[in-house]
Amino acid sequence: MTGSKTGLNPAAVLSMVGQGYYSERTAGARNVINTATEMVRDALATTPATDRIRLADYGAADGGTSRTMWSIVLTELRNNGDNRQVEMIYTDLASNDFSTLFRMMQGFDGDPADAYQKNLDGVFVHGCGTGFHDQLMADNSLNLGFSATAMHYVSSKPCELTSHVHMVGATLDEQSAFRQQAAQDLERILLARAAELVPGGRFICFNFGIDDDGRFLGNTGGVHMFNTFDKHWRGLRDKGRISAEEYTRATFTQHYRTMDEFLAPFNDPQSAVSQAGLVLKSSKSVLTPCPYRAAYDASLGAAEGGMSARDFAKTLIPTMRSWSETVFTTALDQRPKDEAMAIVDEFYQAYEDEVAANPDGHAMDYVHLVIDVEKSA
Amino acid sequence: MTGSKTGLNPAAVLSMVGQGYYSERTAGARNVINTATEMVRDALATTPATDRIRLADYGAADGGTSRTMWSIVLTELRNNGDNRQVEMIYTDLASNDFSTLFRMMQGFDGDPADAYQKNLDGVFVHGCGTGFHDQLMADNSLNLGFSATAMHYVSSKPCELTSHVHMVGATLDEQSAFRQQAAQDLERILLARAAELVPGGRFICFNFGIDDDGRFLGNTGGVHMFNTFDKHWRGLRDKGRISAEEYTRATFTQHYRTMDEFLAPFNDPQSAVSQAGLVLKSSKSVLTPCPYRAAYDASLGAAEGGMSARDFAKTLIPTMRSWSETVFTTALDQRPKDEAMAIVDEFYQAYEDEVAANPDGHAMDYVHLVIDVEKSA
Repeated sequence: MTGSKTGLNPAAVLSMVGQGYYSERTAGARNVINTATEMVRDALATTPATDRIRLADYGAADGGTSRTMWSIVLTELRNNGDNRQVEMIYTDLASNDFSTLFRMMQGFDGDPADAYQKNLDGVFVHGCGTGFHDQLMADNSLNLGFSATAMHYVSSKPCELTSHVHMVGATLDEQSAFRQQAAQDLERILLARAAELVPGGRFICFNFGIDDDGRFLGNTGGVHMFNTFDKHWRGLRDKGRISAEEYTRATFTQHYRTMDEFLAPFNDPQSAVSQAGLVLKSSKSVLTPCPYRAAYDASLGAAEGGMSARDFAKTLIPTMRSWSETVFTTALDQRPKDEAMAIVDEFYQAYEDEVAANPDGHAMDYVHLVIDVEKSA
Repeated sequence: MTGSKTGLNPAAVLSMVGQGYYSERTAGARNVINTATEMVRDALATTPATDRIRLADYGAADGGTSRTMWSIVLTELRNNGDNRQVEMIYTDLASNDFSTLFRMMQGFDGDPADAYQKNLDGVFVHGCGTGFHDQLMADNSLNLGFSATAMHYVSSKPCELTSHVHMVGATLDEQSAFRQQAAQDLERILLARAAELVPGGRFICFNFGIDDDGRFLGNTGGVHMFNTFDKHWRGLRDKGRISAEEYTRATFTQHYRTMDEFLAPFNDPQSAVSQAGLVLKSSKSVLTPCPYRAAYDASLGAAEGGMSARDFAKTLIPTMRSWSETVFTTALDQRPKDEAMAIVDEFYQAYEDEVAANPDGHAMDYVHLVIDVEKSA
């Protein structure tokens, strides 16, 4: 994927939504998860020697981005002579495409080398269609929980954003409302995991956030992705293509926490999370360079048969579109579907044209804040 | 549902497939499951006092037909002061509509009174998209497994049927091939459950089969449903509408076992199933009258504003179509989709017209063979 120089037809991209689309267009997310392999392996090795192992992957979408990681971890487990049965539970919202997920794990879709349910003995794959803000399985039943690039979604929008599409560019009052919602959500998330984990069990969370240098997804020194989203969405409003209300209703239901926000529940020994027995083992931030940018930078110039700026734009915009499109289509949900889709096409086309005209600084680097948490034995 | 006298538009019926379609059109299946409530409740009460309770519903489709049963059983459990956490795992093929299932259990779809995950504390709902011929969860983890109207599907077709659409009308050689496949499948099913169950756990299976009077689904003394299917499918062949190969390829991947076939593994103390510790607690057959026929019989005549024969046909054929259509569309899968669908529409229309012309004896009574199995402690 990361080396692909194929221009993508936006119509083809759209038709793929829901059929492995998410994992196929998010090579960067997969790369991040591969860097998590070592952390998960080491943590699992130190969890208690229960009769069987239960693992969870929260907010896993179709499971495609983390599948290589789990396949490596579980294959090593077996190679090390640990033949305990494993139950893996993938969670996401009820609307998630669990069919593709189940098919991939059984080797009917995707790279068969990663179909660990099929390739290994005694591994059982389950799904759970309830949001991760709730407890999802019985008390004291989980050895290790993992989540990547999922828990920046807040459980509900505290308000619409009036002057930007994402909280990173919102007014201070609006940012504060999102911060408060995210703090409540984090407490719910952690208390639910505290209940689920066995004593000595671990929860490893790779989450979008704002690092100590103020960097976050798509804003790592070059062109600011969310400001670009806002600029083009605002542009549609200013030229009367969308209404003021539609401009405002495009609000990402997300909050990018800072490390201080992530660590607050652990730094207070009286917090509900600390009282529930959760202890922070480690934390760090990880910057993962945009794989589409890397492929473009490594490519020969267009004159030598390599990628043009347009080629690059045609790989970069779809990865952004894969997770952001629903925000803009939802904002237009009072319009007929094809009319809304035409506007959304125009919106992403404007972004693509901007990149094609001058690709300098455009990229979608990932910034993850990572916490590794243990439930005290 | 059962009292509905609404004529159903076949186009509307088709558009509903996958959106609660199965459970909405199978009121009879739901009635059968309600009669299972007492068996499940009594069995659960005698399973060992594990710290938590794990339940499974195998081949559950969208979970709609059994949801009232589980809601009653689990609500009674709580009312009796049993507050142990419950994990319920619904299984079906990967292609199953797990999203509708998860939404229903959380109260987003269907009757909220039955949304037991939402209505009760400490009940967790999971899904598994692997076929029930395999082991689906860890050893010794299941208190009670349940399956209704699912395990008549064989894991693969041993052959196409040359002279009928279903094994109930096939040649003796073909019937024998299906019987052998079904016996192998039953052994796999039971050995997988033997591994999953805790000692003292139970497996209750309501399955389509042939009772001691030779009755089975749609053949209980009136017009023989599968012969009618075959007659109209054969008719399409005889008038050149479908090819001889397409006639043959319409083969239900099902075997209706007799009670002798169900009980064979238990009657032989040396069988793998007996050796794995499974013991038969009870068996019986249950005939459930067709709810659409019952509604028609109870209705005023058309002259008095009640149901006409056509009205009846328009409720009966959709319930048959809900589970049989895929057999006929698959047989036509070498044709363009709309062409295939036009033929299948014609096929069911012929059945509807036959019922409308003379409704006498038409019905889809259910015949279930029920086994209640215990894993010896």
